[in-house]
Amino acid sequence: MNIVVQKYGGSSVATTEKIKKVAEKVIKKKEEGYHVVVIVSAMGKTTDELISLAKGITDNPVPREMDMLLTTGEQVSIALLAMALNAKGYSAVSFTGPQMNIQTTGIHQKARIKDIEASKLLKALEENKIVVVAGFQGVTEDNEYTTLGRGGSDTSAVALAAKLGAICEIYTDVDGIYTMDPRKLQKAKKIEKINYEEMMEMASLGAGVIHYRAVELGHKYQIPIYVASSFSDERGTLITNGGRVGMEETLITGMASSLEDIQVTLLNLPSCTSSLYRLFGELAEAEVNVDMISQMLTEENKMNVGCTIPKTDLHIAEEIVEKWRQENKDIQWEVNTDIAKISVVGLGMRSHSGVAAKVFELMAENNIEIKMITTSEIKITWVVDQKDELRTIELIGSGFGLEMEA
Amino acid sequence: MNIVVQKYGGSSVATTEKIKKVAEKVIKKKEEGYHVVVIVSAMGKTTDELISLAKGITDNPVPREMDMLLTTGEQVSIALLAMALNAKGYSAVSFTGPQMNIQTTGIHQKARIKDIEASKLLKALEENKIVVVAGFQGVTEDNEYTTLGRGGSDTSAVALAAKLGAICEIYTDVDGIYTMDPRKLQKAKKIEKINYEEMMEMASLGAGVIHYRAVELGHKYQIPIYVASSFSDERGTLITNGGRVGMEETLITGMASSLEDIQVTLLNLPSCTSSLYRLFGELAEAEVNVDMISQMLTEENKMNVGCTIPKTDLHIAEEIVEKWRQENKDIQWEVNTDIAKISVVGLGMRSHSGVAAKVFELMAENNIEIKMITTSEIKITWVVDQKDELRTIELIGSGFGLEMEA
Repeated sequence: MNIVVQKYGGSSVATTEKIKKVAEKVIKKKEEGYHVVVIVSAMGKTTDELISLAKGITDNPVPREMDMLLTTGEQVSIALLAMALNAKGYSAVSFTGPQMNIQTTGIHQKARIKDIEASKLLKALEENKIVVVAGFQGVTEDNEYTTLGRGGSDTSAVALAAKLGAICEIYTDVDGIYTMDPRKLQKAKKIEKINYEEMMEMASLGAGVIHYRAVELGHKYQIPIYVASSFSDERGTLITNGGRVGMEETLITGMASSLEDIQVTLLNLPSCTSSLYRLFGELAEAEVNVDMISQMLTEENKMNVGCTIPKTDLHIAEEIVEKWRQENKDIQWEVNTDIAKISVVGLGMRSHSGVAAKVFELMAENNIEIKMITTSEIKITWVVDQKDELRTIELIGSGFGLEMEA
Repeated sequence: MNIVVQKYGGSSVATTEKIKKVAEKVIKKKEEGYHVVVIVSAMGKTTDELISLAKGITDNPVPREMDMLLTTGEQVSIALLAMALNAKGYSAVSFTGPQMNIQTTGIHQKARIKDIEASKLLKALEENKIVVVAGFQGVTEDNEYTTLGRGGSDTSAVALAAKLGAICEIYTDVDGIYTMDPRKLQKAKKIEKINYEEMMEMASLGAGVIHYRAVELGHKYQIPIYVASSFSDERGTLITNGGRVGMEETLITGMASSLEDIQVTLLNLPSCTSSLYRLFGELAEAEVNVDMISQMLTEENKMNVGCTIPKTDLHIAEEIVEKWRQENKDIQWEVNTDIAKISVVGLGMRSHSGVAAKVFELMAENNIEIKMITTSEIKITWVVDQKDELRTIELIGSGFGLEMEA
């Protein structure tokens, strides 16, 4: 069977008028000869409204009952979309996550999909029906309702496509993935095709388009994911396996920038691996999300360690470091809150050395100080002063061809 | 196990504040040593809002998807009530109709309960949990979600009580069942105890308190049903099997009056059973709800037939009668739209003759004309002119002791 799984996010089904437009888009695909499975999120602000109802009851609702509450959101959407399709003369049937037996782990509000029982769905498709499935939700072996947490509906869509061997299309209010956030680089261009790994390294480029977990799943099962706008026919972005090779090969696929981090530097730590283990072990235990790490040995068996952490976690890091300083008065530390973290990603780096060198060159020529740098196989991340952020973005954008042609 | 099934209607759970109050009422019962199962309806106007969403999609939504849509209403309520109970330190768990396996027939929007799988519920009660169950909904053998139609939540509650051998308590915004609608008889008094059959004969007395279907089910399984106000501790009404016997025996338990009917009289019909069959057969087929019927033979093998039907069905009846008049020009008919239909009901009538006679006496003494009369074993219904309605109610109210003592 020629199956397409389409996913429409909350803003695409925010009103009954929009749901009717989504129905038209679904029917268009059906008329092209595909069997269509549609995953929908809750309407617009529904989830927020449900959360606020729960807050009206208690500040600390039990997670099981939050799932019971939140799963109603998608159930409303699937019923309305199935009604709209039937009203337009197309036979359609909706299923909740539990009805479809989307089997998940039992961790409420953060469940993970284990398997999907597709027989009910395939039977409906064989009867030439359009199948509408509630995203974001599933069910445990004990018939307890669960939700998948952030990015849940995208994950439902990709998992279903994987189970069915189908193409996955994610429709949203953004029309694709750009080389850089267009609010920061006006001339940023839309990426036609991006590799799963690039997409995962550059999760922030997908913000508002597709969630990291879904890309990871697409990569694992090699499901091509097409992301585009719900309400325009403009071409979107395909996330897939192929790298961009050939004459037009580019070194860098995209760039991201963040002002959400701070740089912490510890000086005069005892120079041994157990110091690193202690520091990052304690940070991890406190759920501080450390991103960049750099380390430098100094004289006298000491070392300096730098890292970036989210701004919001400063007070936690402070506690951990100060406790250590009580034991060892040599340790000094500095915090720089005034930084921008710039990243570039591209499969091209694998086969071409010299990307880092070119970054250094562009920075040096323009007197932008690099305060920290880390690299992976397909990604380079560096820290500059916040005042240099936009200038860096422009230099990299034009230097690596991330801009639209004039 | 000492189990109580409590049901709270939509107005009792209309806001999060009200849900918290319901939680207190549930906890009070729990603290009295009962295992408590709570059935809730959708919050306040939720069902209406969901219906209006559906109308935004199409005027004629498929019933299967209406059930998919509407079942979310109770699911929100059960989640919030279970949260409220947990927040107050009581372990509570909610179940949807499908989760509880409330098995129904497959007729969407009008499903009927076939059986309930109580093992999941009993297990939770054994773990000392309060169990909150979504009313109004169930599931078919094929795992299709269904709703029970009007009076569904009351029916869920009584069915569950029957399955568990429990007492059933229905809480609502009315504080019990009165001898007569207090808007029409100010001095109407609350009935402490009423028999199932009386209650069924006097369905309108239960309006806003309990649905006919639920009383019928209670009768079938001999489940005592207590109806009272959600938010006061005032004593309500017990619907049960016992008649009121003994020194204080009363002949009449309650009275009802309706201005919603019209009286239709057909004159000069051919005097044979097939005439009656034709008339009432065609009315039934057109779903006209005929209530009273009286028949009188005249000379020359003719007969006159009178009946009452809902005002809203006049045009349907008109079509049926006029078609017949085309064939038989002898037939005449009259319509009286200006009537009040008065009923009194009481198990006491079974053992005491003379109730009808007393009604006639009261009417005659006060020059109120009786235009039609029908009787059953425990009920007398008669028609008077609309202008005589309130006077009739007062006469019967004081004549049969339906009023509060001064």
